[in-house]
Amino acid sequence: MNSMIETILAHRSVRKFTPEKLSEKTIETLVEAAQMASTSSYIQAYSIIGIKEQSKKNKLAELAGNQPYVAENGHLFIFCADFHRHNIAGKQEGTEVIPAIESTEKMIVGITDASLAAQNCALAAESLGYGICYIGGLRNNIKTVSELLELPDHVIPLFGLCVGVPAAQTETKPRLPLEGVYFEDKYPDDSQHIAQLEKYNSIVSEYYNKRTAGNRNQRWTEQITGMLSSVKRAHMKQFLQEKGYGRH
Amino acid sequence: MNSMIETILAHRSVRKFTPEKLSEKTIETLVEAAQMASTSSYIQAYSIIGIKEQSKKNKLAELAGNQPYVAENGHLFIFCADFHRHNIAGKQEGTEVIPAIESTEKMIVGITDASLAAQNCALAAESLGYGICYIGGLRNNIKTVSELLELPDHVIPLFGLCVGVPAAQTETKPRLPLEGVYFEDKYPDDSQHIAQLEKYNSIVSEYYNKRTAGNRNQRWTEQITGMLSSVKRAHMKQFLQEKGYGRH
Repeated sequence: MNSMIETILAHRSVRKFTPEKLSEKTIETLVEAAQMASTSSYIQAYSIIGIKEQSKKNKLAELAGNQPYVAENGHLFIFCADFHRHNIAGKQEGTEVIPAIESTEKMIVGITDASLAAQNCALAAESLGYGICYIGGLRNNIKTVSELLELPDHVIPLFGLCVGVPAAQTETKPRLPLEGVYFEDKYPDDSQHIAQLEKYNSIVSEYYNKRTAGNRNQRWTEQITGMLSSVKRAHMKQFLQEKGYGRH
Repeated sequence: MNSMIETILAHRSVRKFTPEKLSEKTIETLVEAAQMASTSSYIQAYSIIGIKEQSKKNKLAELAGNQPYVAENGHLFIFCADFHRHNIAGKQEGTEVIPAIESTEKMIVGITDASLAAQNCALAAESLGYGICYIGGLRNNIKTVSELLELPDHVIPLFGLCVGVPAAQTETKPRLPLEGVYFEDKYPDDSQHIAQLEKYNSIVSEYYNKRTAGNRNQRWTEQITGMLSSVKRAHMKQFLQEKGYGRH
């Protein structure tokens, strides 16, 4: 165990921040940390938009489903998959890159690159004592978010990352048992999943029970299947294709 | 600056490892670190397959385009997007989850969740002095990889992560200028990209020139557009749909 692993294991999402803003220097450090993540064949297929205008943060908070911490935090980063600069490079070099950029393979690359960079940013922030929270809710209204940020074709906003000084203590949330997530040499039989889900349901149920003084004791499978009982963000496929992602 | 940020900024891919294997305890620590990454609405939509059988590692190395370090390392993790356990949970709870699981939105969630977890794993490994290398090449033959690992529907192998004791020194590779990746409040005009690409081309060209004693001085735009001049892994869309990803 070392301090990095301690920081990683101590992660919890923070949804209430003090008004203290991140300094320019800190923002720069966090972006530099993001940039040093691995990237598929050196492609660097992402961009990061930092939001400073308070009116824009308020609008994004509303678009993300009225999450106040999207408006009130030390800094808000929006991570985007981005092949627009590669398209510019293609024009400069006289090379047709659109068929490659618009492939499903490159969609995977863009989402992966942006996510690896974001996690570096998140951990760098946490190592400095800040709290963080990812905001997938931006995808509720991804087209409006995209317009608000003036994103061209081949750029899609994937998620936000709120960073700030925590104003409230939160707890780490228990993850699936290791044996439910990590397997060796091949994928396990369903019986292994079923045993691990049973074990995990007790853990999660106890966690909620304790945290809510007995008012909630949901099992994980209950919570998650409830969430998966309807299709959310059904606009996603069309939006991606309009922006030039995963066309073929 | 602290030791975590120092580790993040010192990242370089390692492609030659000593034969030393990771201990069970270290593998467990790295998986626990992976699991503590943020996950969309607590969904934990990924699995990790650790490969111990040498014959399987050899086969994966071949499938990834004959990359020897996929066979020879301290440990090989394969990160998969995974909604299979959610499907099992749906059956247990009597809830129909397939339409949600097979949406494009959940494909984004699976890729993002797996990537955030992988980056925690990678950084935890680097903090312990190991070197790492991501292996996107597994997607060259994703269907065969998937069969080799016996992955059911709703599980797709995204990339590998080789971890081990470095057997050769490598250098950090210069990233895009910060001003080419990080923007405030809105996406920039093309002129900003063009200026940053020009600046970056000099940096990359000088980096290659120095590293190869003058034998290579490729610009970044040249290298990347060369790579993007043809469609790679054109099977990806069909494979994803067959496995139940992004069907609608």
